[in-house]
Amino acid sequence: MAIAGPLKISLQLLAGDEPAMGPGKALVLDAIARSGSISAAGRDIGMSYRRTWQLVDSLNRLWAERVVETHHRAGAKRGAELTPFGQRMLTTYREIEARMLAAAAGDDLDWLVGLTRPGAESAEPVPREV
Amino acid sequence: MAIAGPLKISLQLLAGDEPAMGPGKALVLDAIARSGSISAAGRDIGMSYRRTWQLVDSLNRLWAERVVETHHRAGAKRGAELTPFGQRMLTTYREIEARMLAAAAGDDLDWLVGLTRPGAESAEPVPREV
Repeated sequence: MAIAGPLKISLQLLAGDEPAMGPGKALVLDAIARSGSISAAGRDIGMSYRRTWQLVDSLNRLWAERVVETHHRAGAKRGAELTPFGQRMLTTYREIEARMLAAAAGDDLDWLVGLTRPGAESAEPVPREV
Repeated sequence: MAIAGPLKISLQLLAGDEPAMGPGKALVLDAIARSGSISAAGRDIGMSYRRTWQLVDSLNRLWAERVVETHHRAGAKRGAELTPFGQRMLTTYREIEARMLAAAAGDDLDWLVGLTRPGAESAEPVPREV
């Protein structure tokens, strides 16, 4: 999710019916770039190792080039990193997201935002059907 | 969710921390406009009456003007309809959504889409931590 003031957008890029890229995968890729491993990335963003690994696996399947490279050679440091393609794919996704947020601006958006009532939400019992 | 080819976007408009408008509420408003009642709208979109009613209640609280008017006078037809403000709010939301989808277009998006592999997703066991 990208948030800019009163706007929150989620952008998914589909490969057929499957989400090849989206907010969750972008979050995982950012965290792997920071932390250098899939398990550390998961801990950083409060996602289970299993779920984090599945998103990485999905990324590597749904793109023509590998997005994340993992290292587990005997004797070598274990870990994971974005490939050059993965870095470029993530950057491009973020650029498209930023362009969409910018496109939302306008008098009509200002009009809408001016008519919202922050803090007015509260629970009430559900009445009979109408 | 708005879908255009390989793009799927979700746009939320926040009132403070609360979503004053988003894909679910837009769906409910479309269905009320079509069906003339909250219960029929819920059935149309496969949403429980309780959940549909709560989204309508949230809309009426989080906007400065009422979005949906309900009728339950004795002897009169029961039902619900969008107010003129609700209609205009929904239309404006859809216009902003369309503008954002249009803004996504570009050589970089074409490049990304050309590198996805539809149908390549499949489950695989999760290996040891890397």
